[in-house]
Amino acid sequence: MGVVEVVRAGLVEARHSVQVVVADSRGSLLASVGDVDGLTYYRSAAKPLQALPLLDEGVVQRFGLTDAELALCCASHEGESEHVEGVRSILRKAGVDESLLRCGAHLPFSEQATRALLAGGGQPARVHNNCSGKHAGMLALASAMAWDPVDYHLPHHLVQLRMLDEIRRWTLLERDQIRTGIDGCGVVCFAVPLHVIAASFARFAVAAQTDEGPRRVVAAMTAHPFMVGGTGRTCTDVMRQADGRAFVKLGAEGVYVGGVPEQGLGFAIKVADGGQRAVEVALVRVLAELGVLSGEDVEVLREHANPTLRNTRGEEVGEIRAAFDLADVVV
Amino acid sequence: MGVVEVVRAGLVEARHSVQVVVADSRGSLLASVGDVDGLTYYRSAAKPLQALPLLDEGVVQRFGLTDAELALCCASHEGESEHVEGVRSILRKAGVDESLLRCGAHLPFSEQATRALLAGGGQPARVHNNCSGKHAGMLALASAMAWDPVDYHLPHHLVQLRMLDEIRRWTLLERDQIRTGIDGCGVVCFAVPLHVIAASFARFAVAAQTDEGPRRVVAAMTAHPFMVGGTGRTCTDVMRQADGRAFVKLGAEGVYVGGVPEQGLGFAIKVADGGQRAVEVALVRVLAELGVLSGEDVEVLREHANPTLRNTRGEEVGEIRAAFDLADVVV
Repeated sequence: MGVVEVVRAGLVEARHSVQVVVADSRGSLLASVGDVDGLTYYRSAAKPLQALPLLDEGVVQRFGLTDAELALCCASHEGESEHVEGVRSILRKAGVDESLLRCGAHLPFSEQATRALLAGGGQPARVHNNCSGKHAGMLALASAMAWDPVDYHLPHHLVQLRMLDEIRRWTLLERDQIRTGIDGCGVVCFAVPLHVIAASFARFAVAAQTDEGPRRVVAAMTAHPFMVGGTGRTCTDVMRQADGRAFVKLGAEGVYVGGVPEQGLGFAIKVADGGQRAVEVALVRVLAELGVLSGEDVEVLREHANPTLRNTRGEEVGEIRAAFDLADVVV
Repeated sequence: MGVVEVVRAGLVEARHSVQVVVADSRGSLLASVGDVDGLTYYRSAAKPLQALPLLDEGVVQRFGLTDAELALCCASHEGESEHVEGVRSILRKAGVDESLLRCGAHLPFSEQATRALLAGGGQPARVHNNCSGKHAGMLALASAMAWDPVDYHLPHHLVQLRMLDEIRRWTLLERDQIRTGIDGCGVVCFAVPLHVIAASFARFAVAAQTDEGPRRVVAAMTAHPFMVGGTGRTCTDVMRQADGRAFVKLGAEGVYVGGVPEQGLGFAIKVADGGQRAVEVALVRVLAELGVLSGEDVEVLREHANPTLRNTRGEEVGEIRAAFDLADVVV
């Protein structure tokens, strides 16, 4: 089991257990830390796979969605103005009313965006939901396919069945091997063994070198990392720094996934307790060990790799650090 | 090691490791789960001890602080209007200007209070800091003792040295056996072995039956639980339901402490990864096993004992549940 430590004044105050698996497209494990067999929900880490029907069904082409908008369909965004405007643009192009969004309303993740919204007399709306890009994409899919867009979030709706098929396609599993639940935003979420998540992203990374759909999703995410997260977000800063060498995506409850197209690799990370602060630190360590990020890159990403803990006065009070290595990286 | 599980659609999505220790005032362990020797920061769980100088030095008496205000000095509060007004009242009575507060400004923990503040054109201030009651008490102490109130938060200031002495008094440790760090609000925080934290609260609980200082702190916390936390907070709801049979206090990074005066017991709980959602669930389980909360009480406290996980649409998507028992409760 790997560990990420939270340290205050030199004393470890909290420990997060971390599981990591790196796989190739055949499903062979190239490196692993901890138990990687456990059923794990992808949560939002599935979004890059869930964006593929937008290309395979010609939705992007038909509605003229931009690469930035496609990246937003893969996002867990901060609710900043670019994200909110992007979601509204997707809906407008697809001819879908915003009221059809079925994600729940919540305040923007971004404190600055929240403060601007409330100071202006605004209220949290569905469009601020961090998953609203994915939901807009799902509505655009329904519109393009001439499916009834109402309640596209329900498990029996054609949109969600199409998403399940996409998970089958990349995991090579049957429907009854994929556990499902309801996600934070209301749509279906999917659980498979952690090593299968890694293999699914290895296949996706390999396909991105030859197939139009995966290629465009990866290109959109890596060219528009701001749209995948936002100001200060790990997904955004890491993809910006990796400069196209990898694509990564956070999932709730301590999940990170990614793919390294040139190496034909995928990886999946899970923090056992669901701690986001730990999985972000683990991500940078994994990318460094895979050679995707150089020592210099890690230094630039220091506030994600080895964050300084500051108190409400802005004083340094500790740090978060990765205390594990990948055992057997065969790359 | 005890475990608190986070479950989505019947599948365990996250696991929190939990350590629990119940001790008496001699420091004997009456029950324990997991490793209870590790150095653990009290964090805000020290506040009830840190409030004692307000009585022992006659600060409460001199400035006529109410029981509700004394409870607020022990609080990690939500920043609701009652809390903010209470802090300002303490400062006014002590003749101290609000600008002397040295806790950092942050938005109120309460989303409702945050929304009201920002919609009214307000900005987060130091008084909204969840520890501002403790800080107001520290300023009142400095005022009563005729100590320079400026920068009372610094480790060498007489206020902080007095706090360290208070920790020594209840832990029976020497200064060099107590590790210190800087807390989230800027004052000194203290780390000792987890079982020593439990013993310190056992001594405090026993003293509360005979000594004026501890008696009044416990009486204030249990009579004014809203001031110790706020709307929906576990400290508040649990103390309300326990109806004086126990006092409890949350600390950051997954700490809960408490005392059961009638049984002469103290306890300390630490979630290894610092997860607050887990330690709150563990608290109710521990109080139930100690016989402080009945089955009926636990039912009333269901949203703390076994919280329903809801998504942003308000739908039930899972639960959080305690999956441990105290091994050898000798009470």
